Amino acid sequence: MLRMARWTAGALFATAVMVNAQAPQGPVVVSPEVSAERTITFRLLAPKADTVEVQGGDIQGLTRGVIPMVKGANGVWEATSPVVPAGAYRYRFIVNGVNATDPRNPQVSESNANSWSLVVVPGAAWVDVGQVPHGAVASVTYFSKSLNRNRRMHVYTPPGYELGKGKFPLFYLLHGASDCDDSWTSVGRAGFILDNLIAAGTAKPMIVVMPAGHTSTSMGPRTATARDEFADDFMSDIVPYVESHYRVLKGRQNRAIAGLSMGGGQTLNIGMAHLDQFAYMGVFSSGVFGRGPRTAGATPTTPPEWETERAAMLDNAKLKPGLKLLWFATGKDDFLLGTTKVTIEMLKKHGFEPVFKETDGGHTWLNWRDYLNEFAPKLFR
Amino acid sequence: MLRMARWTAGALFATAVMVNAQAPQGPVVVSPEVSAERTITFRLLAPKADTVEVQGGDIQGLTRGVIPMVKGANGVWEATSPVVPAGAYRYRFIVNGVNATDPRNPQVSESNANSWSLVVVPGAAWVDVGQVPHGAVASVTYFSKSLNRNRRMHVYTPPGYELGKGKFPLFYLLHGASDCDDSWTSVGRAGFILDNLIAAGTAKPMIVVMPAGHTSTSMGPRTATARDEFADDFMSDIVPYVESHYRVLKGRQNRAIAGLSMGGGQTLNIGMAHLDQFAYMGVFSSGVFGRGPRTAGATPTTPPEWETERAAMLDNAKLKPGLKLLWFATGKDDFLLGTTKVTIEMLKKHGFEPVFKETDGGHTWLNWRDYLNEFAPKLFR
Repeated sequence: MLRMARWTAGALFATAVMVNAQAPQGPVVVSPEVSAERTITFRLLAPKADTVEVQGGDIQGLTRGVIPMVKGANGVWEATSPVVPAGAYRYRFIVNGVNATDPRNPQVSESNANSWSLVVVPGAAWVDVGQVPHGAVASVTYFSKSLNRNRRMHVYTPPGYELGKGKFPLFYLLHGASDCDDSWTSVGRAGFILDNLIAAGTAKPMIVVMPAGHTSTSMGPRTATARDEFADDFMSDIVPYVESHYRVLKGRQNRAIAGLSMGGGQTLNIGMAHLDQFAYMGVFSSGVFGRGPRTAGATPTTPPEWETERAAMLDNAKLKPGLKLLWFATGKDDFLLGTTKVTIEMLKKHGFEPVFKETDGGHTWLNWRDYLNEFAPKLFR
Repeated sequence: MLRMARWTAGALFATAVMVNAQAPQGPVVVSPEVSAERTITFRLLAPKADTVEVQGGDIQGLTRGVIPMVKGANGVWEATSPVVPAGAYRYRFIVNGVNATDPRNPQVSESNANSWSLVVVPGAAWVDVGQVPHGAVASVTYFSKSLNRNRRMHVYTPPGYELGKGKFPLFYLLHGASDCDDSWTSVGRAGFILDNLIAAGTAKPMIVVMPAGHTSTSMGPRTATARDEFADDFMSDIVPYVESHYRVLKGRQNRAIAGLSMGGGQTLNIGMAHLDQFAYMGVFSSGVFGRGPRTAGATPTTPPEWETERAAMLDNAKLKPGLKLLWFATGKDDFLLGTTKVTIEMLKKHGFEPVFKETDGGHTWLNWRDYLNEFAPKLFR
């Protein structure tokens, strides 16, 4: 019976190709191609283009964030990256100045205002898609009363969750300014990192909620109001939705919050304003943000109003023992290293005992995946 | 306290924009833009390009599948579609012959070998993202023993499922040749269509499993072997995974299978080979596929071997009463209308009573969303 299915499906394919005009025209282009040595070769058929570059900020060794591509006689432009660590990389082509995802690559990573092609580079057990039990990562639509519209978040449920047994602690994981609620799942590999940690017994099974931290798709500087909206949405809509739709363990000791860059700032803004509700906080490549634009070499300051407005929580000694972990990690080359350090000093002044890990590297997903892999095992102990 | 969060986040945004070089350069381009009259305006900044077109096969009124775009003095190319029905539309730009997703649009729809930009056009309650309880659509990774690798599927769970109560019937929903396991969720709007039907009481709450019907990313004609692999994966890996990881009602009467185009052929191949296991079958724009390429005007034939190899099931009178519904729908302009009709005649010859709905329209997602909306309410009655 199976033999028969072969040629019937074969005919179907021929049909589909005719109809959808998807058949390769000209040279067959394979892109991206990952070598055993973990280099990535990018290719694009663009015979009429004058310049083609590939851009992918996390791919180490890029000059000004781009690799120039070289045109072959067949009209295919090509470039190969240096050796990269295992993980996942966003990239796009710049063709005569126009940004384009890779037309030969179905994998994408959504951002707040655009999308990127995504290439997954295997080679490290902690971040690879392992042969371990996998959780599920769901796209969840909820109605936000505070924003008066439907919103989306991603929710990781641990392996076996859908059978209906058990209750689990909650980890809220926030993205950065260039990202959206898809980013921790796609480029961040959060689901696979958690799968591997849980399979190894290194992290406890948990639900990971990844909300959309932006309330507008605009990427430029915004009006102040736009930002408050997320804090409202988070406390008034996201938390109640999750607690009423998932089997969760209640109480502060079962709630963690962390975020990268913008999400790290939101973690502190929200977490310290509701310190009675969170027992674990993670701040990746971030801190409390100061006024105005940041420039290299400038000394960051923590705005005094931030402390004043949170004084009741910051200086409440009764809330301190319940904060099991206040964890910071920032890379040596990160432009927010200074912000991280002044935030830590400010929090120490209020009697907190933050843990700070200064790592190699900069403001990249290379670090944020590492930080998640290090932070998640510390939760709910 | 919330007032304070405003300017701290504002500073963060300025920082992020500087670092990620995401700030708009040149004219601010909004694309796509959907009007109240349901036209779609596409825009692309490409001052150096000679030709730019927008391609989106389901957008009615396109000449040869593309709309030529017109360049403005500011280097922004623009085109506006005719009025389209509410729904979702894949599109891409073709810039000097290079396919590119819309760099201003974060929404994408994955296909088997590439990805498309996606624009959602609201305006019809059955397919809009309603203010109703929403299910979740999860990306699920499972290890396929038959293919010896990790594979992905999407799984819709009905509203409230994650709380852990109840068991549900199973609906396997297969995609077409140009698609992947994401397609029914993104361009197909399956989750939102089910949400609306369930909220109206028109469809029973159910789990919808959307597997990956391809076993290779190649879109060209394939070796025969490549296709068998899906049937193996489906029966040996997907069905056992779902039944052991979800709270499902067991038995034939709680199992439905349907698919569009290639997925309709797979529905018949798999469903009729395992007729004892499915009570509902839906074949959208499809049938049993014949030999060789299909050309307009040619009379399709159903390969006699297809029947011979399934004779034990096709001619087993005891299995007929348990098949509650065998439902076909194909559009008047669909190139597979003939294939649908000969398949129906062949099945009648074997004593089946297929229902056939000949609709307007062609081989497009406009019809497949409609068919899902019509088919799902008939299940598990």
